[in-house]
Amino acid sequence: MASHGRIPPPLPLPHANVRKFKIALCQLMVTSDKERNINHARVRIEDAAAKGAKLVVLPEIWNCPLSLENLSKYAEDIDAEEAPSISMLSEVAAQQNITIIGGSIPEKTNGRLFNTCCVLGPDGKIKAKHRKLHLFDVDIIGDITFRESDILKAGGEPTVVDTDVGRIGIDVDLICYPGAFNLSTGQLLWEMMQRSRAADNQLFVATCSPAREPNTMSDYIIWGHSTLVGPFGDIIATTGHQMATVLGEIDYSIIQTRRENLPLEIQRRADIYELVDVQGKPPG
Amino acid sequence: MASHGRIPPPLPLPHANVRKFKIALCQLMVTSDKERNINHARVRIEDAAAKGAKLVVLPEIWNCPLSLENLSKYAEDIDAEEAPSISMLSEVAAQQNITIIGGSIPEKTNGRLFNTCCVLGPDGKIKAKHRKLHLFDVDIIGDITFRESDILKAGGEPTVVDTDVGRIGIDVDLICYPGAFNLSTGQLLWEMMQRSRAADNQLFVATCSPAREPNTMSDYIIWGHSTLVGPFGDIIATTGHQMATVLGEIDYSIIQTRRENLPLEIQRRADIYELVDVQGKPPG
Repeated sequence: MASHGRIPPPLPLPHANVRKFKIALCQLMVTSDKERNINHARVRIEDAAAKGAKLVVLPEIWNCPLSLENLSKYAEDIDAEEAPSISMLSEVAAQQNITIIGGSIPEKTNGRLFNTCCVLGPDGKIKAKHRKLHLFDVDIIGDITFRESDILKAGGEPTVVDTDVGRIGIDVDLICYPGAFNLSTGQLLWEMMQRSRAADNQLFVATCSPAREPNTMSDYIIWGHSTLVGPFGDIIATTGHQMATVLGEIDYSIIQTRRENLPLEIQRRADIYELVDVQGKPPG
Repeated sequence: MASHGRIPPPLPLPHANVRKFKIALCQLMVTSDKERNINHARVRIEDAAAKGAKLVVLPEIWNCPLSLENLSKYAEDIDAEEAPSISMLSEVAAQQNITIIGGSIPEKTNGRLFNTCCVLGPDGKIKAKHRKLHLFDVDIIGDITFRESDILKAGGEPTVVDTDVGRIGIDVDLICYPGAFNLSTGQLLWEMMQRSRAADNQLFVATCSPAREPNTMSDYIIWGHSTLVGPFGDIIATTGHQMATVLGEIDYSIIQTRRENLPLEIQRRADIYELVDVQGKPPG
């Protein structure tokens, strides 16, 4: 085993208490009114729970319009519990007895800004807090330039969390990706990336985007298309760019079936190649 | 550097003599007549060269209909130079002064069968011989069952080859994938896989399939759709399932542009994670 110091210890198995459940991706319409955004999100989550969703996913940056200028203005200090957006998520998770992937909101702490996703359990507690690792920088002349890294600080750790509805994160049952792609990268990459991650790893992928604001003055036009993808890269449920709640069923038993259909793990040729991390630190 | 013993030494740079050239993907119609298949392939390659192609790619298993039963019957012993399919490729490469990725043919050697791709240079010589590493086994009840590993032996080495038209293989300018997907995996995975490999690695991907035989009695219905993909996962040229030659231009300068547009390599967080090969052998 090429085991280095930084491999996280395995979490206890089996992952999930339930093997089959409904997921809802709330493609919220975001306005410049933060309180309205929070109230609206609550209504959509309650509605999804009423329709049977046990896991609800919110979009990237759902409490303010996505622009670099807004991030600081709408940010919350989650650790200091001065966080109305996260307090609402906590309340509604407990009231509805569901798990929430809280999309992301700008987080302010000690003068630094992060793009942060909280995961809340049915007890209302924060089970995980993920700070975006890979800030989005794009520069296509005549098309789009957007540099999160000018404003935000990147997080320091990947996140894997065992919830009532499975292990979510990396090397898991389900990858949840609250994302706010734009027209350029959305058209090119959004669907393909999530389908290929699902098919490569033979697991479920759920993405949740904000809805597109029809009268936006921003150069950053949201792509939308929140989608649930199955372990063959198959699209289970999706939508356009309008406000919508995407409801789909996750049946973890399909993961096992697909891994039997196409036994990629067995077919790996560990005798011939290994993953080599040319940027990695030395072992030990 | 997490450098293990099995990292191949770097090949000399720069990769290619030319930065911009035409590529042709010959989606051949394959019959049960081997001599006819060889003659037909020659005509299509000559035609592609006449249209300006400097690199011509043939499909996986182009000298016989794809069925496990046929492979042994149509196989050639390439090392023993009893290989009419490869001899033809060698001749036409030299005559036309082009590079050929010779799709694949069944190779017989010392009683073993491989699925083998020869790369021929403009001098007519075999520059590389790649034996398929990942044999295709699929088992979807009520849909398709196909097990190459029952019949074929897998190759033992990855292949990277410096040609007159760039470095082809892995960690390269261009990944060439002669493949014969079927209706099931074709619909699900063919386009997505090549687009995601191109976008993830920000390079060109070229796939070449046999054409679909309209009156085939085989359970294995060929998908077709030979495609050239650019470094954003963009489809540059493609086709349906009929016989066709797909012609497209490769401009290696686009690789650099795309890597500036979306600087994925720089955005890697080598401080947080490294690739860990859980199946790999111990270092050293």
